[in-house]
Amino acid sequence: MSDAKLQSVLSALSQTVRQLDAIPAKQPGPEANCVKLDTNENPFPLPMLVMRSAIAALKRHYLYPEDDNRCLREAAANAYGLSRDQVIAGNGSSELLGLIYRAFLAPGDSVAMMSPGFSFNRKLALLQGAQFLEIEWSKAYSLPIEQLLLGPAKEAKFILLANPNNPSGTFVPIAEIDRLAAQSDRLIVLDEAYVDFAPDDALRLINRHSNLLVLRTFSKSYAAAGIRIGFGFGHPELIGRLRNSQNLFNMNLIAHAVGTSILSHRAAYAENHKHIKDERHRTTAALSKLGFSVTPSHANFLLARAPPGQNGTWWQASLRRRKILVAVFPDDGLENHIRVSVGSKTQMDAFLSAAADISKSLKMQPVTHG
Amino acid sequence: MSDAKLQSVLSALSQTVRQLDAIPAKQPGPEANCVKLDTNENPFPLPMLVMRSAIAALKRHYLYPEDDNRCLREAAANAYGLSRDQVIAGNGSSELLGLIYRAFLAPGDSVAMMSPGFSFNRKLALLQGAQFLEIEWSKAYSLPIEQLLLGPAKEAKFILLANPNNPSGTFVPIAEIDRLAAQSDRLIVLDEAYVDFAPDDALRLINRHSNLLVLRTFSKSYAAAGIRIGFGFGHPELIGRLRNSQNLFNMNLIAHAVGTSILSHRAAYAENHKHIKDERHRTTAALSKLGFSVTPSHANFLLARAPPGQNGTWWQASLRRRKILVAVFPDDGLENHIRVSVGSKTQMDAFLSAAADISKSLKMQPVTHG
Repeated sequence: MSDAKLQSVLSALSQTVRQLDAIPAKQPGPEANCVKLDTNENPFPLPMLVMRSAIAALKRHYLYPEDDNRCLREAAANAYGLSRDQVIAGNGSSELLGLIYRAFLAPGDSVAMMSPGFSFNRKLALLQGAQFLEIEWSKAYSLPIEQLLLGPAKEAKFILLANPNNPSGTFVPIAEIDRLAAQSDRLIVLDEAYVDFAPDDALRLINRHSNLLVLRTFSKSYAAAGIRIGFGFGHPELIGRLRNSQNLFNMNLIAHAVGTSILSHRAAYAENHKHIKDERHRTTAALSKLGFSVTPSHANFLLARAPPGQNGTWWQASLRRRKILVAVFPDDGLENHIRVSVGSKTQMDAFLSAAADISKSLKMQPVTHG
Repeated sequence: MSDAKLQSVLSALSQTVRQLDAIPAKQPGPEANCVKLDTNENPFPLPMLVMRSAIAALKRHYLYPEDDNRCLREAAANAYGLSRDQVIAGNGSSELLGLIYRAFLAPGDSVAMMSPGFSFNRKLALLQGAQFLEIEWSKAYSLPIEQLLLGPAKEAKFILLANPNNPSGTFVPIAEIDRLAAQSDRLIVLDEAYVDFAPDDALRLINRHSNLLVLRTFSKSYAAAGIRIGFGFGHPELIGRLRNSQNLFNMNLIAHAVGTSILSHRAAYAENHKHIKDERHRTTAALSKLGFSVTPSHANFLLARAPPGQNGTWWQASLRRRKILVAVFPDDGLENHIRVSVGSKTQMDAFLSAAADISKSLKMQPVTHG
C-alpha cells in the first residue's frame, strides 16, 4: 500500500479534520456491574404503553422512517402548544447541536458558551474551525447579561447556555432569559435538557423572541437516552432552514414511535420525577453530612465539592474501586468536585454507603495522597 | 416579534444555509395502502433471532448507546475479515456520506459523481458550497477510467460511484474498480448499497488501496431501512479521522442490537436474496413482453424504459392511480424510464397486473397524452 497515496487522501481533508487524530481502535469499555451515576441517565422503565409502541414499530423495520420526522414533530407541536413548523426533531439533541454549529459557523467565526458548561460544545466548535469563547457565570451561577451584550460574545454567531446548567445543576430564572433574548440580537441557543427537574421553563418565550432556539432531549427526564430523541423549538424561518440542511432519515422508526408515545404519556412520568427530586434532596443532605459542599441542584445530578484533602479525581477513583461511577471535570475551579447522577433509591444508597466508607477510611488515615 | 432581529439571526447563518428555503410545514404524506416499489426496500421479516435481540435491547432504553459503536464495529470487522479500526458505523450510510462531504469539502472545492447516480449527493455538495461534477457513464454503464484520471474529476476531492449503480442497476466488474483505485490518487468512495444482489464485491480491495472507502447499508439486502444501519470500510488513518469528526451517540441501541445480530445471521437471508433475484428475472421478462426495455439489473430494482408514447411520469401517475408506487428521475435521458423495486411475489404480481392493465387501455385508446 502506497504511503504517498494515503498522504494524498489525507491532505484532501478539510483543515480542521486533517488536524484531528485518528481515534485508536482499542479503547477501554465501560466497567460492567457498576452503579452508573456518571452520565445523568434515568434508570426507570418506560411506561408500558410506550414500550408496546416500540415493539409494534419494530414490525415496520424494512420501511424507511417517515421523511422530515413529520408525525413526531406534529406530536411535539401539539404537546407543547406550538405549530409543527416551529419544531425540528433530532437523533438526540446532540445531532441538533451539531446541525446548529454547521449552519452558523465557518472557520474564523466565534461562538460563546456559558462556562462551565457541556464540554462537547468545545469539540463542535473545533470541527468548524471556530473560536470557542467561554463566558464565566457570575456569582452563584447567575447570568452576566451585560457581559453577553457588550463583551466578546457580542460578535459570536450564537450564544449557548443550558438551563438548568450542566455540570452545576443551577437554574436561571426565566425572566433573565427573557431579558437576554430581548436585549441581544444574537441567536440564543438554550439547552433545556434538564428542565423537567426544574421549577420553570422557557418554551413560552419562543413566540416572543425570534432569536431564541430551545433544545430538549428525552434522554434525561424521559429515560430514553438509548433511543436518541431530541427537539429544537424556534422561529419557523430558522427551523425550516435547519430542517433543510439536515441529513435524510436522521432518526429511526423506533425513535419515532417511542418519541411520539412519550409525548402522549408525559403524565406517567410524574412519579419518576418526584422520586428523583426526593432522592436529590436526600442525597444532598447525606453528602453534606460527609463534609461535601453541594451546589443546590435543579437537575437530576449533584455537583459536590469534596471535603478538603482529596480532589475530584481521587474521589472518582476511590468510588470506582467500589463499583460506583461518577463524573469529574477538568475546568478551572472544578478540580475538587464530583458530579453524581441522581437515580433510584437503591443506586443512591449504594453511592452514599461507598462515600461514607471512603470518608471513614480517610479519617483513619489522614495523610493526603493524591 | 421583531423582524429586524429575525433578519439578524438569519444573516448569521453560513452562506450555503442562508440560501436554503425554509421547508414548509405541510407536505403530502405517502399514500396509504399502496404497493410500495419506489425506494428499494426489502419487504421480508427480520430473522426471528434478530427481532428477539431488538426486543431485548429495548430494555436498555435508559442507557446511552455504546461510545464509538465499538461492539457493532467489532462484529462487522469479524464478519468481513477486517480489523475494527478499518470500520466506521453510521445511522445509515446516508450519515456516513454526509460525514465524508463535511470532512473533505469546503466552499469552492469540487466532488465528482458518476451520473446518473444517487441524487441526494447533489444536496450534500450544495450544503458544503462545493461544485458537483457529474461524470457520465460510458456506453452500457461502463466506467470511463481515463476520463476520471484526466478530466475535471482529477481535481475533485473525491470521486463517488455506486456499484451496482442506482438507478441503473448496472454492475462494474471489480477489476475495473481495482484499476481506478490503483491509477488515481483521489479518494474513491464506492457505495455498495446493493452489492448483496450482485455477483461480486470490492471489500477485498480495502487492504490494497488506501484511497478506497467502501460504504454498505443494511437498508436493502438486510431489510432494515427503518432501523438505520450503515458502514464504511477503509484505511485506519482515514476511518479514525472520520470517527473523530462524528457526532456523539450517532446510532441508537436498537440499531446496535439489530446490526450486530444481522451480522451473525447473514446466512438466514440467502432465501430472501434468491427470491428477489428470481422475481427480478421474472419481472424483467414480463415487462419486456409489455414493450418495456429493461436495463439488466444486479440490484433489487429495475430501470425500465417505457414503450414509445408515454413518458416515465405518465406511467408513474397511472400506476399510482392503481395504488402502485414507483420512482422516476429528472436526469437527461431518463425521462421515459421508471424504476421499480423488486419485492415479494405478491407485490410484483400486483405491479405487473397494473402495468398490463395500463398497456391494454393504451392500445384501446392510442392517442398520446402527456
